[in-house]
Amino acid sequence: MKQFNVAVVGATGLVGREFLKVLRQTNFPISSLRAFASQKSAGNHLPFKDGEVVVETLSPHSFEGVDIAFFSAGEEVSSVYAPLAVSSGATVIDNSSRWRMDENCPLVVGGINLDAVRGKRLIANPNCTTIEALLAVYPIIKKAGVTRLNFCTYQAVSGSGAKGISDLKRTLNGHSPQFYPVDISRTCLPIVGSFYGDGYSGEELKMINESKKILSMPSLKVSATCVRVPVESCHGVAISMQTERYVSIKEVKKILSEADGILLTDGSTDSFPTAEAVRGSDVVAVGRVREDLSGENGILLFAYADNLRVGAVTNAVQIAAGLIERGEL
Amino acid sequence: MKQFNVAVVGATGLVGREFLKVLRQTNFPISSLRAFASQKSAGNHLPFKDGEVVVETLSPHSFEGVDIAFFSAGEEVSSVYAPLAVSSGATVIDNSSRWRMDENCPLVVGGINLDAVRGKRLIANPNCTTIEALLAVYPIIKKAGVTRLNFCTYQAVSGSGAKGISDLKRTLNGHSPQFYPVDISRTCLPIVGSFYGDGYSGEELKMINESKKILSMPSLKVSATCVRVPVESCHGVAISMQTERYVSIKEVKKILSEADGILLTDGSTDSFPTAEAVRGSDVVAVGRVREDLSGENGILLFAYADNLRVGAVTNAVQIAAGLIERGEL
Repeated sequence: MKQFNVAVVGATGLVGREFLKVLRQTNFPISSLRAFASQKSAGNHLPFKDGEVVVETLSPHSFEGVDIAFFSAGEEVSSVYAPLAVSSGATVIDNSSRWRMDENCPLVVGGINLDAVRGKRLIANPNCTTIEALLAVYPIIKKAGVTRLNFCTYQAVSGSGAKGISDLKRTLNGHSPQFYPVDISRTCLPIVGSFYGDGYSGEELKMINESKKILSMPSLKVSATCVRVPVESCHGVAISMQTERYVSIKEVKKILSEADGILLTDGSTDSFPTAEAVRGSDVVAVGRVREDLSGENGILLFAYADNLRVGAVTNAVQIAAGLIERGEL
Repeated sequence: MKQFNVAVVGATGLVGREFLKVLRQTNFPISSLRAFASQKSAGNHLPFKDGEVVVETLSPHSFEGVDIAFFSAGEEVSSVYAPLAVSSGATVIDNSSRWRMDENCPLVVGGINLDAVRGKRLIANPNCTTIEALLAVYPIIKKAGVTRLNFCTYQAVSGSGAKGISDLKRTLNGHSPQFYPVDISRTCLPIVGSFYGDGYSGEELKMINESKKILSMPSLKVSATCVRVPVESCHGVAISMQTERYVSIKEVKKILSEADGILLTDGSTDSFPTAEAVRGSDVVAVGRVREDLSGENGILLFAYADNLRVGAVTNAVQIAAGLIERGEL
């Protein structure tokens, strides 16, 4: 089997470390692995397989000989280095939001629209909650179409990176917050990202715009309310959707129970999706499936997934694996 | 000024103790205060004003001479004792769900439908999140009507009573949960109350049915997803509403900024409602007001309020005070 020279950019962050873990767990066909981060982390050792990998400082020449580069170092790094990596011959899967809405970049959920890649070598990995929410509804959309999607999120502090986790721990121990604008241990925070002029937050606009792009439905009606909650990891999302054609709740449950990567939690009525059920795993737990009493062809459901895995790393690795399987890499 | 003999039933619970606090803080015109609880709490002393009140065991004769009885001891106690209290001549304001959907009982939010009392002496206090959510949207409804309401809640553990708070503290300290079905310190729990046959939870059906009754709109389209979050107190709720007539977001903000009991948190764009802003207060913080991009005449907003106060005690006391002011008590 063909082996690849793989690079992880932003290797010392929460998502970067998860990349090393998932690449190992999935036996990704790696001939060499390089880990890049900012200068202050250079020389650090990160565990990989039975040994370690030494962190290197990112430079314009870092990508010589690299086949696949997974980026997770923020928008600015992706803005500069992702095109350089592509010029060096690498295929880039970028976890930042920098290239997601760029019309030349495919925005891909492995289980939904791998076809959108079409030979492009700078591929954007969507927003964490968007990936999870769309994986939950896509099997239903395939069957019955969709005319409206509304999301209300319950997002863990790990979505803010290590700083978010530290701030939760610090405030739980009675100290003042240093990262979030309030004591996140004592409230949900109904804002994720910055405000935009129309009252939406950055995270909400990501969910709205990325959903339309991934589903290739530019005029789909989508809204979102994104909320940070005092949970360390895994994101929950309450979804209200309207399908184009009627589909019974019984049928929706059947569709979900047969879908790859979905754990339907209400075969019986006393189970429901939780962070505990999905932490460290690659499934999206979906439950609370019921009719939306407020609208025609309306379905309500609730999904939970590991935001670092399903919402970031697993999807990126699945995209690469899918392209390898198709012989496109 | 007329003074009243007041009883608090369930006085040793979280809500009961809050009743004693709010009755004192609002200078409720009390000539005598009696505190009732189950036998195991009888003889305990509870602080009230400058002194104390001794807890008595509830009995069928407890209500002789009582003018106003605030009940907060669960459905079973209300089922038996609320009618007895009324027979004894008391006006009962019942915080349990027992009488809420009884067609002979008015279900009242003080700031919305005090008129519904119409001389009845067994008055039901609505579900905590319902009170808060309706107080947030009612000023908009008065102006522009309403055709659809969707709620997603972020409910604190104090909504489960002292047992909920203990379970959060216990699990934060690394112990196993004894009350919730999962470790509530590590996940949101997308079920509040029991499941019903159609997939809705008890709490969701309360929000749906009680909203229709309070607004006197039996065919209003309402849906709800109720979720417990690892926050000690105060409930958040994300609301999506559709108005009958178009109203601009600017106008909605003006309406909310002028409404009694509402703290509009986004006069500027960098503020938002939190538990921290409302804990211990009687206001509903409302923010994140913006157009719902997914539907015509759609508005999105987020509300936070102290569930024990706005969602329970303050409303009950406001109902009593309103009836006194009208000379109906």
